[in-house]
Amino acid sequence: MEEKPSRVERPRVESLDEILGQPLDVLDDGFVRVVDYMGADDSIVQAARVSYGKGTKQVHEDRGLIRYLLRHRHTTPFEMCDIKLHVRVPMDCWRQWIRHRTASVNEYSTRYSIAIDAAQETAPGDWRMQAAGNRQGSGGSLEAATGARLTEREAELHALARDVYQERLEHGVAREQARKDLPLATYTEAYWKVNLHNLLHFLRLRMDDHAQLEIRSYARTIGHEIVSRWVPLTWQAFLDYHIGATSLTRLERGVLQAITAGHPDEALRLAESFGLLARGADGLKRNRERAEMEAKLAEFGVEVPWKE
Amino acid sequence: MEEKPSRVERPRVESLDEILGQPLDVLDDGFVRVVDYMGADDSIVQAARVSYGKGTKQVHEDRGLIRYLLRHRHTTPFEMCDIKLHVRVPMDCWRQWIRHRTASVNEYSTRYSIAIDAAQETAPGDWRMQAAGNRQGSGGSLEAATGARLTEREAELHALARDVYQERLEHGVAREQARKDLPLATYTEAYWKVNLHNLLHFLRLRMDDHAQLEIRSYARTIGHEIVSRWVPLTWQAFLDYHIGATSLTRLERGVLQAITAGHPDEALRLAESFGLLARGADGLKRNRERAEMEAKLAEFGVEVPWKE
Amino acid sequence: MEEKPSRVERPRVESLDEILGQPLDVLDDGFVRVVDYMGADDSIVQAARVSYGKGTKQVHEDRGLIRYLLRHRHTTPFEMCDIKLHVRVPMDCWRQWIRHRTASVNEYSTRYSIAIDAAQETAPGDWRMQAAGNRQGSGGSLEAATGARLTEREAELHALARDVYQERLEHGVAREQARKDLPLATYTEAYWKVNLHNLLHFLRLRMDDHAQLEIRSYARTIGHEIVSRWVPLTWQAFLDYHIGATSLTRLERGVLQAITAGHPDEALRLAESFGLLARGADGLKRNRERAEMEAKLAEFGVEVPWKE
Amino acid sequence: MEEKPSRVERPRVESLDEILGQPLDVLDDGFVRVVDYMGADDSIVQAARVSYGKGTKQVHEDRGLIRYLLRHRHTTPFEMCDIKLHVRVPMDCWRQWIRHRTASVNEYSTRYSIAIDAAQETAPGDWRMQAAGNRQGSGGSLEAATGARLTEREAELHALARDVYQERLEHGVAREQARKDLPLATYTEAYWKVNLHNLLHFLRLRMDDHAQLEIRSYARTIGHEIVSRWVPLTWQAFLDYHIGATSLTRLERGVLQAITAGHPDEALRLAESFGLLARGADGLKRNRERAEMEAKLAEFGVEVPWKE
Repeated sequence: MEEKPSRVERPRVESLDEILGQPLDVLDDGFVRVVDYMGADDSIVQAARVSYGKGTKQVHEDRGLIRYLLRHRHTTPFEMCDIKLHVRVPMDCWRQWIRHRTASVNEYSTRYSIAIDAAQETAPGDWRMQAAGNRQGSGGSLEAATGARLTEREAELHALARDVYQERLEHGVAREQARKDLPLATYTEAYWKVNLHNLLHFLRLRMDDHAQLEIRSYARTIGHEIVSRWVPLTWQAFLDYHIGATSLTRLERGVLQAITAGHPDEALRLAESFGLLARGADGLKRNRERAEMEAKLAEFGVEVPWKE
Repeated sequence: MEEKPSRVERPRVESLDEILGQPLDVLDDGFVRVVDYMGADDSIVQAARVSYGKGTKQVHEDRGLIRYLLRHRHTTPFEMCDIKLHVRVPMDCWRQWIRHRTASVNEYSTRYSIAIDAAQETAPGDWRMQAAGNRQGSGGSLEAATGARLTEREAELHALARDVYQERLEHGVAREQARKDLPLATYTEAYWKVNLHNLLHFLRLRMDDHAQLEIRSYARTIGHEIVSRWVPLTWQAFLDYHIGATSLTRLERGVLQAITAGHPDEALRLAESFGLLARGADGLKRNRERAEMEAKLAEFGVEVPWKE
Repeated sequence: MEEKPSRVERPRVESLDEILGQPLDVLDDGFVRVVDYMGADDSIVQAARVSYGKGTKQVHEDRGLIRYLLRHRHTTPFEMCDIKLHVRVPMDCWRQWIRHRTASVNEYSTRYSIAIDAAQETAPGDWRMQAAGNRQGSGGSLEAATGARLTEREAELHALARDVYQERLEHGVAREQARKDLPLATYTEAYWKVNLHNLLHFLRLRMDDHAQLEIRSYARTIGHEIVSRWVPLTWQAFLDYHIGATSLTRLERGVLQAITAGHPDEALRLAESFGLLARGADGLKRNRERAEMEAKLAEFGVEVPWKE
Repeated sequence: MEEKPSRVERPRVESLDEILGQPLDVLDDGFVRVVDYMGADDSIVQAARVSYGKGTKQVHEDRGLIRYLLRHRHTTPFEMCDIKLHVRVPMDCWRQWIRHRTASVNEYSTRYSIAIDAAQETAPGDWRMQAAGNRQGSGGSLEAATGARLTEREAELHALARDVYQERLEHGVAREQARKDLPLATYTEAYWKVNLHNLLHFLRLRMDDHAQLEIRSYARTIGHEIVSRWVPLTWQAFLDYHIGATSLTRLERGVLQAITAGHPDEALRLAESFGLLARGADGLKRNRERAEMEAKLAEFGVEVPWKE
């Protein structure tokens, strides 16, 4: 790195510039739009090469280097890209969003200004049922008539909440106090700036099927509509190595090895030793870790050597 | 530091141990309680002395060293103490709290469990008026009759919100969706762990008169009831050097110097050059920076050499 | 969570208390010792249960819950435990250590005090050869005679560096400048406080075979001697789900599925479409991703359907 | 904020673009150059206005708003600007730099590549003496003859260190180990990305007279040559409210008030009650806090009512 490099231009990404500033709709009244960004796939490569020194330029091409970095969790070069989004999102959803701490935020202030006059509304067909197997998820929709009734009641509640808010303001109550009973679904807006490494972490958690539908909708829009345009090489690597990857625990590896090597008895012994095969009156006791293992092995057409 | 030090005991703070686990009431139905802590005033001294090497033990005594560190913003030793609180707080207030990013948090999940059946209620005399001079503050109370009416309406809204929530749950709506219209004032609970440096930063902002009454109530309880017991030397230094301190800008210093040196003309010239003395039809234009300067100089009995 | 909980005791860990303050030797003249800690396996469970509400206590037992949390990357409860270490470590190694940003640090100051009179020394048999396949690793030892020669030269350099340092100090050169040519291997000391989540991340990277021997020695001591005593349930889960786990990329899953389902042609097509089977004059071109895939499949006794 | 805003352009700063990529020399062989940036003074205003809602645009003009934000520590809008620098800096200095944790870093790797063949050299006139009053500072220069001798010895040490390093590499020692005795003054390079808020914090500490000359040289170049071009309004506000400001402690305010109000006896009582006036055999004992107070009061021409 002896030669001092000369003047550079800021990297630009044509395909992202095309949508700069344009709101991408999410939910009934939300949006995400890109306000600014810094860096591109190139910048990741450039930062990584500072670490490697100049001698290595010939060896790796950009795509290969980016994929290598992401596959092997060399995360720092991905911090060299930043994006700034303007989002409009229900406060309820924002409460989850804001738990990602490594980002910069300026949120619309309902102390300073009157609250945005909009709350997320639910169409009759969009009421989701509590998931059976998962205490924190949802699955399936309520039947139409019930949905219609709940949507009516939602409108009633929104109307009362808005009336009460207005009434307080008209009587001169401070905005900071008047807002106290707004519904959690009230929309807020914010500027949210995050680096690419932390954004990918956010997407990994929030694009997932276990994430709540609302934040998942934002995450998928950000991923598929924005990140894919901004850093296409990184995005593909992310799909290949994070979203589409799976992890095998020490035990799952051991059991899979034993079975593929033709030693089902060894697989049994291992599962036993990890406490996965405890039995009750009616066969094997429910065991979450075992269920997860069985699902993974099934993906590879491998049958487990124990019976329910 | 050549000698390897021998076995140590974990530092304990008797006066904090006395209230460990005990909820301290805040607002109508909130609390703060200490769950655990690490370190004490001693630990700050000990960490600072790692930096200084052993030779300096005789020179400073603990109190002096802590005060020196805090006065001169040597902040790292204060990171060596941690405290873990269990808090119960309205979500509205929690939204402000959580913006302090350098803390660890586990919050009660209304995806996983049914929401806590309590929202902050406002007594008729506790409705605060919008502040006149400050767009984001409050000041004074509404008169009793209006307050009574607003409190009634608040109860009506809380009741409807709770009914709608129950109705959704009874129809099998997923908890994550059923909660969407809970009032912002609904109580939540969380474990919040923070180091002393970041806690003092939190307290500096949130104990301040400009902070909203609700979070200010929590901050003052934490400061006066908890931190004062935990690290009394640090607490006193914090009151002396942060809470009770004031800052003079470059311009304020210049004007104060000029006036105390008997050069009011120079003070005028300075203020003019900073654009603080722009005039309109009816005298000096409103200028926030000038107003702040005048308030500070008045504290020291100094009259400014310009006229409204 | 309606009942307000009563007084609690700080959690203690007997097996960790036994070694509190005792230096555990690392390298020729370094050490790690535990100065203080907060929390235990119990505290992780307790924090997680704040999220879940009280109703769930019967369902999970502690061990199962901790394993579930770690397996599914529910990381926040692990932030609820903290540990404070006093370490003595060569500056060269410390330069890597300090790159982990989410920790609190007080380091011995060579501006303030005279540098510690010790630098890491290399025994004749401990000179490591540059790794062949890995540009940033080492492998194998130099032969004895060369090692002896290099050790002699190291001593010569250390002696000169120390002389020059002393000379500068004797002539009244400021400590901050006098230190400028100390060898990177000079020992420093620091207090390092980190939460369990971030510590596990540190250990995952630094206990790894790819980490440099020096920092790996510290990491393994911290892991095997300290964390294993402090939070034994978490430690075991960490070995099972992080250290002993492996990850299969989207492509690796696809290829493995195709092969186990008896469709080697499909596996070939997939690998081809990912660009892993490019050919040069003498067969398949070197491809790092393909090599990694082959190694993983071999672990499960699966032969790849392509030939070198 | 009801209207969804339309397409935007990325903010550009002409005066910064002019020096993009150009190395600004620091020390004998170091540099700083801007590689990329995001945002401008405008972006701070824009982010702040998200908080305030659109109604306020007319009230504040940009300059006034930026100054208000900085004066009142509304720090989040300043996080909305980022800058990426390429720096070349002695490792010794980098050790201080890297302690600022809220930045992203890619450093030249001497595990991966051969170390940069340059170490900071000291001209005969540049040897600094240990400060008398400040254990961690320097002041004044050594006399020429001594300086010349020390510079010679420095060259001797650098030569031996380089020889030993080369020798190790030639014998096949791994780069990660070969580097262990390089002088701390060896140059390294890095990409360093930081947001404006954290950069100002860095500059406040490192432009200060108490910072070591080396890092101060970098900080001043970054401040005066780069930040001043990038965000000129913020830079001026920073000079006025941070660099040029002073702080008065609770006690200093009290004493100054008492004196200016004509109550020197009250000032005495206060100082006494704070323990600043302890006496020994030969008058007042040395007391750092008192000395600091006296210096501040002297700035305003105020004489203290106690005698040495």
